[in-house]
Amino acid sequence: MTWPRIGLAAGDPGGVGPEVVVKTLARPDRLPPAAYILFADPAAIAVEEQRLGLRLGLRPWPPAAPREEAGLFLQPIAGSGPADVGLVTAANGQASFRAFETAVAEARAGRLEAIVTAPVAKAAWALAGLPYRGHTEYLATLYPDAVMTFWSERLRIALFSHHRPLKEAVAAVRREALLEFFRSLHRGLGRVPGGPYRLLAAGLNPHAGEDGGLGREEIEEIGPAIQEAAAEGIPVSGPFPPDVVFRKALGQRDAVVAALYHDQGLIAFKLEAFATGVNATLGLPFVRTSPDHGTAFDIAGRGLADPRSMEEAVRLAAAFSATGS
Amino acid sequence: MTWPRIGLAAGDPGGVGPEVVVKTLARPDRLPPAAYILFADPAAIAVEEQRLGLRLGLRPWPPAAPREEAGLFLQPIAGSGPADVGLVTAANGQASFRAFETAVAEARAGRLEAIVTAPVAKAAWALAGLPYRGHTEYLATLYPDAVMTFWSERLRIALFSHHRPLKEAVAAVRREALLEFFRSLHRGLGRVPGGPYRLLAAGLNPHAGEDGGLGREEIEEIGPAIQEAAAEGIPVSGPFPPDVVFRKALGQRDAVVAALYHDQGLIAFKLEAFATGVNATLGLPFVRTSPDHGTAFDIAGRGLADPRSMEEAVRLAAAFSATGS
Repeated sequence: MTWPRIGLAAGDPGGVGPEVVVKTLARPDRLPPAAYILFADPAAIAVEEQRLGLRLGLRPWPPAAPREEAGLFLQPIAGSGPADVGLVTAANGQASFRAFETAVAEARAGRLEAIVTAPVAKAAWALAGLPYRGHTEYLATLYPDAVMTFWSERLRIALFSHHRPLKEAVAAVRREALLEFFRSLHRGLGRVPGGPYRLLAAGLNPHAGEDGGLGREEIEEIGPAIQEAAAEGIPVSGPFPPDVVFRKALGQRDAVVAALYHDQGLIAFKLEAFATGVNATLGLPFVRTSPDHGTAFDIAGRGLADPRSMEEAVRLAAAFSATGS
Repeated sequence: MTWPRIGLAAGDPGGVGPEVVVKTLARPDRLPPAAYILFADPAAIAVEEQRLGLRLGLRPWPPAAPREEAGLFLQPIAGSGPADVGLVTAANGQASFRAFETAVAEARAGRLEAIVTAPVAKAAWALAGLPYRGHTEYLATLYPDAVMTFWSERLRIALFSHHRPLKEAVAAVRREALLEFFRSLHRGLGRVPGGPYRLLAAGLNPHAGEDGGLGREEIEEIGPAIQEAAAEGIPVSGPFPPDVVFRKALGQRDAVVAALYHDQGLIAFKLEAFATGVNATLGLPFVRTSPDHGTAFDIAGRGLADPRSMEEAVRLAAAFSATGS
């Protein structure tokens, strides 16, 4: 029996990332058997363990270790020492990026089956001079087919666009780009256990445009993209009214809603899956998941952060890694 | 003791309106004491009663009746006889409009405290040559301050715009119009029991624009409108990230989310309040509520329609009518 090797990037040291990671790894009995490798500044983790009164007992990780070995490991990332908790700083931005980048490199080299990323601060990355808006944007530079998806017990969604102004997101709803999105999403889902999945495509306008009376994108862009994708054998239907499609997908284990813009998908997802939702990037040669909350600077360093979403992210990474192992 | 007089417009005879109205009125023990006056074609109601095996025992309504009298009444509206069930026809559109219009006229004349409207078909109204997209648009021609709101046990929302293409809805997010909206909404809520209410204003862009990095409407339009409204004493805060504000409002009995476009509000509302949500138009001199589902032509005439949302609409109308009676 071999276990998946799952890297955890500890996230921004000023946010709740290290806390939810430590809380999650402190209860390995609640996690699937795997080699869990934490990419973090040892000093920052030591501070967090002390603050929470937890001892992880991490062992040094030899990347060449045999795949039979399960347990908890540490891959040290040079940091700036104990972090300024609750603050946006260039040093914290640099540290969180370095942990993430190193874990990605190990996964690309085939030494990790999956990575789980704790939340980073976009503002801290910007202060550190990094040109990426977040994990997904960095991964998209390496893998243009990367698709952002969100998973919970009862609802699964994928985002056609994410971090752009709504006006631009609306203008980006074009047939050709949508067809590419359906293809990438379908391909990515093909490697996820529990499939095959079918796509429910959301419309853009109220009532999905009501036959053109409330907008023409459904007729001119979305409908044709769905038809072309379906003709290629991709199981996609719609466009459905945006305020109906999520309810329609709820509890259907093989349904994934293809949402057209950030809040169309995330208003539904965050309402349905508060505290236990997981973000998964598809279209990579390895698995990548993360909790669906942010750095929560306002409660960082106080032991109040809820680790459930991180736990679920680790579980989903393990489940996704199981395929083909 | 006087009871509110609540008119019910039976909706499109081809849809589930007559069915949910008859099912609701057939169990008056589940409704608050009131005079319930059904505005409908007697033939259509008789057919529905027979189909469902229910007898309402409606009495003729004398509009000059004393307010002490509770019970079930009928105000006959000339119809086209038994309707084409499941079909969009001009006759059905005309019938549903006439019932609605008559009930509104009685309310305007002070002979009803509230009206509850079963679903109509916009397409049938169009076939009948009616220039209104729905109940709310008709009421807005009489009362320009009319505001569309949605009520459930755990969530309350108001819509800044409703039936327009998303592209136009985004362009309509302007300071002056928003300020008017906050004023109308606040004024309308002032007459609703359970207050005072506070408004949580949603942003337009992902993460509420993230300080301008993801769109500037929050900085240039929404923020200033909130500040001006607050300076006038309106309890409004925000703009909050759209995927956070509904979760934030959930279960807060005094919170009403001010949503900027149809699906921003209704994706959240329909997910949270399936089957029991109620639509209420504020800013009128009388109460107006309706269930939040449509005509459901696909299941009309089969006895399958769920009357819970209609029941809740009647209860909310009675509760709202209680103020000042």
